[in-house]
Amino acid sequence: MPDNATAATPSAYAYPLLIKQLLHTPFVQAPNQEIVYRGQVRMTYTTLRERIARLANGLSRLGARHGSTVAVMDWDSHRYLECYFAVPMMGAVLQTVNVRLSPDEIAYTINHAGAEILFVHTDFLPLVESIKGQLETVREFVWIDEEGSEAETHSIPFAAEYEAMLAASSDHYDFPDFDENTRATTFYTTGTTGLPKGVYFSHRQLVLHTLTGMAALASPEAGQRFHRGDVYMPLTPMFHVHAWGMPYIATVLGVKQVYPGRYIPNRLVELVRDEGVTFSHCVSTVLHMMLGCEQARAADFSKWKIVIGGSALPHGLARAALERGIDIFAGYGMSETCPLLSLAQLPPGAEALDDEEQLRLRCTTGRPVPLVDLRIVNENMEEAARDGNAYGEIVVRAPWVTQGYLNNPEASVQLWGGGYLHTQDIATIDPTGNIQITDRLKDVIKSGGEWISSLEIESLISLYPGVSEVAVIGIKDEKWGERPVALVVLSEGFVVSEDDIKRHVLTFSESGRISKYAVPQIVKFVDSLEKTSVGKLNKKWLRAQFA
Amino acid sequence: MPDNATAATPSAYAYPLLIKQLLHTPFVQAPNQEIVYRGQVRMTYTTLRERIARLANGLSRLGARHGSTVAVMDWDSHRYLECYFAVPMMGAVLQTVNVRLSPDEIAYTINHAGAEILFVHTDFLPLVESIKGQLETVREFVWIDEEGSEAETHSIPFAAEYEAMLAASSDHYDFPDFDENTRATTFYTTGTTGLPKGVYFSHRQLVLHTLTGMAALASPEAGQRFHRGDVYMPLTPMFHVHAWGMPYIATVLGVKQVYPGRYIPNRLVELVRDEGVTFSHCVSTVLHMMLGCEQARAADFSKWKIVIGGSALPHGLARAALERGIDIFAGYGMSETCPLLSLAQLPPGAEALDDEEQLRLRCTTGRPVPLVDLRIVNENMEEAARDGNAYGEIVVRAPWVTQGYLNNPEASVQLWGGGYLHTQDIATIDPTGNIQITDRLKDVIKSGGEWISSLEIESLISLYPGVSEVAVIGIKDEKWGERPVALVVLSEGFVVSEDDIKRHVLTFSESGRISKYAVPQIVKFVDSLEKTSVGKLNKKWLRAQFA
Repeated sequence: MPDNATAATPSAYAYPLLIKQLLHTPFVQAPNQEIVYRGQVRMTYTTLRERIARLANGLSRLGARHGSTVAVMDWDSHRYLECYFAVPMMGAVLQTVNVRLSPDEIAYTINHAGAEILFVHTDFLPLVESIKGQLETVREFVWIDEEGSEAETHSIPFAAEYEAMLAASSDHYDFPDFDENTRATTFYTTGTTGLPKGVYFSHRQLVLHTLTGMAALASPEAGQRFHRGDVYMPLTPMFHVHAWGMPYIATVLGVKQVYPGRYIPNRLVELVRDEGVTFSHCVSTVLHMMLGCEQARAADFSKWKIVIGGSALPHGLARAALERGIDIFAGYGMSETCPLLSLAQLPPGAEALDDEEQLRLRCTTGRPVPLVDLRIVNENMEEAARDGNAYGEIVVRAPWVTQGYLNNPEASVQLWGGGYLHTQDIATIDPTGNIQITDRLKDVIKSGGEWISSLEIESLISLYPGVSEVAVIGIKDEKWGERPVALVVLSEGFVVSEDDIKRHVLTFSESGRISKYAVPQIVKFVDSLEKTSVGKLNKKWLRAQFA
Repeated sequence: MPDNATAATPSAYAYPLLIKQLLHTPFVQAPNQEIVYRGQVRMTYTTLRERIARLANGLSRLGARHGSTVAVMDWDSHRYLECYFAVPMMGAVLQTVNVRLSPDEIAYTINHAGAEILFVHTDFLPLVESIKGQLETVREFVWIDEEGSEAETHSIPFAAEYEAMLAASSDHYDFPDFDENTRATTFYTTGTTGLPKGVYFSHRQLVLHTLTGMAALASPEAGQRFHRGDVYMPLTPMFHVHAWGMPYIATVLGVKQVYPGRYIPNRLVELVRDEGVTFSHCVSTVLHMMLGCEQARAADFSKWKIVIGGSALPHGLARAALERGIDIFAGYGMSETCPLLSLAQLPPGAEALDDEEQLRLRCTTGRPVPLVDLRIVNENMEEAARDGNAYGEIVVRAPWVTQGYLNNPEASVQLWGGGYLHTQDIATIDPTGNIQITDRLKDVIKSGGEWISSLEIESLISLYPGVSEVAVIGIKDEKWGERPVALVVLSEGFVVSEDDIKRHVLTFSESGRISKYAVPQIVKFVDSLEKTSVGKLNKKWLRAQFA
């Protein structure tokens, strides 16, 4: 009788989940499929495989070994795709440097990650020269010189140039097996306060994220799906959460891939047109810029599918995209979650719904992808009802969420609680699993035992004639915990009273849409509202000001 | 500077790949989706979740614990689906009893697996009564009495009846976390010689098989795909390789599922029609029977997709299916591989191919699914060229292949070699990754350093006028290793000489289709050819006879 209580022992035949294992099928099934860079460089998947091996050999010569960190400063390119595979496949860690940080922050992240080798695109030479003296761990610099420029003015002692290094290296490399929990990638989040924090993902996590993302994106009944016949172009930077992990999915699917270099709206639209792009992902701002650019006027977007993430998908943008024939839908995740948690794909039978309901569904936070254990909970980790009304903070378990911040145990502790990663997002879930984020935890107002969404009250007040801008914040209250206060900027020429606003909000309370606690205690008229550097309401500042 | 060489340590937040994790999304996204049994029992996914918990509670009361084995003898049913989840989710092992084995073999497998609890459908009562005395490990019997019958005649001391047990149990059960390498399922292969051998799969393996199968099946450009809008009905028994793992995939997709009970062709066709079934999988024989039954004449199969596995998909059956509007394609795998290894889905752009080429592609062995490292090799594990001509044995690595036979180290050793599982199938691979199995390793003829496919030579000889049946076997030869011998049965009234056959085969050698070594050394005319009990050529017997 067998000893079933013992787990099946991992044997010599155990199969670790390594990024190299993602490459078995694409090079077999789509060997002649194209990878295109800016419409100028074209290569096949067979060439990609060779270049991955060349890059690994080149890096080995520069001293990269298992556990080394290789940092990259490049635009979205086939080179970046090569790094996504070659660096982790040799057992090293790929640091995708966030080139939008300040020079000091960039130096900090490279030092903090302990990068030994730094790839620098010509466009970032001045920046790297300015921080060279601060870099403590970089031993070797590799120049990415796609223009054949001389870069005479630079003073960086480059060990190699990217293409020359590949040309001089063998196209064969025996990528070894190792522990699937080995760190594969790292990058830094842009916190609004404090130093950037590093998140990191293992081979196992990236393989599972790829498979599940592939399964979730391919399985809708019709539309909104990423499949083998698509042409893929990322529109979220490759330095940011591995471009949402999509280049890994695209490669396993064996689709044509298009990398656009630096984001210039007219050029992006030309690439969609000229290369026949059918699947992309971006933040709202990028799509908004693209739809508004000159080249967009005559462009045919009717075969283009786009996942929007990073923040809520505005109904207005979604409607504008749908009018241009774009199959648009929202996705949800964060840097700490690799990122994919949920997708707002239409469920089977949705073609029978009216246009407004379809639009609403496309703009929700979506439904969890497989393996994601997503709940909305109160402070005691008790689940809120899934009735579309009850609020809670989104907490998640998934095989691909970061287990903490790199060398930052204090911040890591705050990220986790009760065995779940805490997203700080407040949401409802309806009975069919649709999540709707209503607020950030730090902005939600807790009054009389209820959670009031500051965003929802702002949205209602903004409907009142003459209201130009509004911020709703919570102020401490002995009896109720917190009470909502509305700060309102009126348009010129309007006369509105505090009672007008309160009565207006009260009607929504009477109709049952919002709690009676949501009616602002105080409505204060102000000349302007403090914003952050990226144009969002600075609620932290406002709360301090009106405490 | 971080210690990157150290793997990211699995922490308290590690997420084991457990079968329970497959259930997060379906009950959220499709709570009211239907599961149907024989058109008679209907329940929702929400009810399924409750019944899984009830079953686990019922089994706990019967003493099942982590490491126990629970064996099931049932037809394809919602009950079996409940067992697929509840038994492994509590940490126990599900043995799916192969009810087609002989009574003695069934008793052997139950004892060998060490099953403590045995579920018995009323139809199997006589069988279980006949072997009751042989069962060494079963402590408790559970009766599956769907007819409300009294089964008065039986002498088995049932501890419970399935439905009564569920009704008496709580619908809440806290399924624990445990090591993902814990054994989840076991079943026995029907070897042609010797005792049945047990294969077994862990939670990790089944989760990875589910995700990858889901991704592979959903991602074709058009057609041949299993997606959220489908209605699923298995047509390979649930006791055999978990019905190819498809019920797990169907559940994660959240589709309507239809379980047919015992396979009766007319009833199966009625279920396809009445329940709107759109996705199934079976061996050729089952589809052949269904297409030939009375109910099939007027049936509309135009929305039905079918994967055919178990053995090669005959062109004739594929053509007949296509003529009825069925979207048919082959899959490849074996009991030892969980089973999915490859799928013969049409590649993007295939709609431009002519019908015959599409038919050919649908009938190939297919292309590997993601994560499957599949090679064709010679005896020294050297890879054969992927040119569509060179032969080799298919060897595989994949995260879900069994690591050996249960408590059978000798057979396990034979299964593996050079780090790969050896399938005993001989195949070619063309430059676009299409595998074509040409023979079984034990039947291939090794002559003059080349591998000759006995199946291919048989196929060529069968084209010669008057040839009714033919078997090609290898006989030992001092100079060449082996030489092919053809055993030919002629149709009545035909006069054919040995030279006629040799010259016929030689023409294919001259045209380059086959090697010159493939021309039979001897052609022997016989009255009949020995067959196995399932009607296949008994080449083992023939080789011994003509050695």
